[in-house]
Amino acid sequence: MVSMRSANERLANRRNVVDEALEAFVQERMTGSEAPAMSLARDVLLAGGKRYRPVLALLAFEAAGGGDPNEVMDLALSAELIHTATLVHDDIYDQSKTRRGKPTLHASHGIAHGIIAGDYLFVLGFELGGRYEARIVERMARTCAGIATGELLQFEHIDDLATTPEDYYAIIDGKTAGAFATACSCAAIVANAPDSTVEALDGFGMEVGRAFQLVDDMLDLTGEASMGKPRGTDVHEGKMTLPIIHALTMLHGVEREQLADVLRNFSDDRWEELTYLLEEAGSFDYALQLIENHLDRALAEIDSLPPSAARDLMSEVARLSQSRRT
Amino acid sequence: MVSMRSANERLANRRNVVDEALEAFVQERMTGSEAPAMSLARDVLLAGGKRYRPVLALLAFEAAGGGDPNEVMDLALSAELIHTATLVHDDIYDQSKTRRGKPTLHASHGIAHGIIAGDYLFVLGFELGGRYEARIVERMARTCAGIATGELLQFEHIDDLATTPEDYYAIIDGKTAGAFATACSCAAIVANAPDSTVEALDGFGMEVGRAFQLVDDMLDLTGEASMGKPRGTDVHEGKMTLPIIHALTMLHGVEREQLADVLRNFSDDRWEELTYLLEEAGSFDYALQLIENHLDRALAEIDSLPPSAARDLMSEVARLSQSRRT
Repeated sequence: MVSMRSANERLANRRNVVDEALEAFVQERMTGSEAPAMSLARDVLLAGGKRYRPVLALLAFEAAGGGDPNEVMDLALSAELIHTATLVHDDIYDQSKTRRGKPTLHASHGIAHGIIAGDYLFVLGFELGGRYEARIVERMARTCAGIATGELLQFEHIDDLATTPEDYYAIIDGKTAGAFATACSCAAIVANAPDSTVEALDGFGMEVGRAFQLVDDMLDLTGEASMGKPRGTDVHEGKMTLPIIHALTMLHGVEREQLADVLRNFSDDRWEELTYLLEEAGSFDYALQLIENHLDRALAEIDSLPPSAARDLMSEVARLSQSRRT
Repeated sequence: MVSMRSANERLANRRNVVDEALEAFVQERMTGSEAPAMSLARDVLLAGGKRYRPVLALLAFEAAGGGDPNEVMDLALSAELIHTATLVHDDIYDQSKTRRGKPTLHASHGIAHGIIAGDYLFVLGFELGGRYEARIVERMARTCAGIATGELLQFEHIDDLATTPEDYYAIIDGKTAGAFATACSCAAIVANAPDSTVEALDGFGMEVGRAFQLVDDMLDLTGEASMGKPRGTDVHEGKMTLPIIHALTMLHGVEREQLADVLRNFSDDRWEELTYLLEEAGSFDYALQLIENHLDRALAEIDSLPPSAARDLMSEVARLSQSRRT
């Protein structure tokens, strides 16, 4: 068990390594023929994301017995580039005006430039990922197709009060957790790890990704408005997150009808009502318990790996993702 | 020299091979977890495009001495998938309501679904292309980045009456010709052809692609309204195509001012005026001559290849692209 302070420092160190590699990559593309596209994409790429995916790729590579971290860096950057591509495109069709407190790309440059910048980021992600063996490209492609499918499923269930927990998991496994799983499992493949290790790290990433998305969904319901994106965005958009799905199942009679009414006719002055109903139903506790369960499963997945500083840091990332506030 | 009829038949045969492979691929993805995404993308993919890129990939593979055409099929499909992805996204930001006489994807399903379907098609294109060696992935990535850059350059020059022929070629090399070049050159790489052959086929594709785009631009100015997309779309959007750039250079005094006014305040009742000015400037003849030149250069590029039925058919594709009406 590493001490909290030293773990935080080591994680910050890994994030710095990722940030430096990303900045060098951006700089390289700013000097050639791609400068017009990169100068458009640069800001959102360097806007200070949390870099969970690339940091986990680096750690998974180490934990799986990998040697020179340069071998896995293209994969790590690829995960971040593709993630950023999806953010840029999501923001267009979610009509989000701000991200991390700044105007979204399409808000400042228009929809055309947002679509093109996102496409360009996808291309870069596939370029770097495409340098690896066929198994990795295959996993990346399945994951990205899963993001598209997850987003489509989410649209299908907008305002659908009959959405089940299974629907919810199909959505988040596609749009979020799959990318965490693939970053970790592909890093293990790069490290020439045995299949059992690849699958353990895939499982770890999937469970951390699920916890991550559940935390995101909780923050949307309980977070501060100062977080960079407004609280309650999901509720306004009619997205069925797990606490809401749970409350719709648990409440009966008048309260169930009241919740349905709050969701169908939501406005900011109904926050207290919504919060009260979710608390009545025990939905916050339920979601917190599920987050706990996913993190326990994540840790169990990597329990079989040989002890290493990287494995300990992966546990820290999992724990930190639980307590994050943005 | 093959007879016209037999050449057309052989080309139709290659197109059928591509169509069958594409349909099989679509069918395969309709049965698994990607069904929601593929059922969205399927219509535009199977809407009967001309399949220039994949057909040229098959022919270039043969002309470069390739053996089993199955080896190059993923590459051919990849070119078509990525091309279709760009069409879907272009249609969104060009606000095009129809393509090939049918409603565009975003027109019938909304912008979100259009963006996601385009992303999914990109993923599939990179998945299939990513099965090949690093050199091919690298060329694909450069080409796709070039598409983004070309589109951005085009936006920069919207309504810019000072656009130069060099600007124009930078735009079309990026957004169109590069993809033709890469389909041909990568097919030669798959065929294990020597570098000289790879570069000859790259040059062939680039020149055919330029001719193709110039024909497209001419059709926008002279075509029938029944072609599937309305005549004059480029003029309405303020896109500076080569005949217009030429006329702005050649005309002087009153006529130059009149042309500038027509372009700045274009409406359908000014078609005759625009056509008159372009004819006065000799811009149609000029564009037709350039098309001829690009095709001559394309043929010169493959002149050094060993004679083959495939090489002859590539010449036919080049010639047919000149006389196409849609």
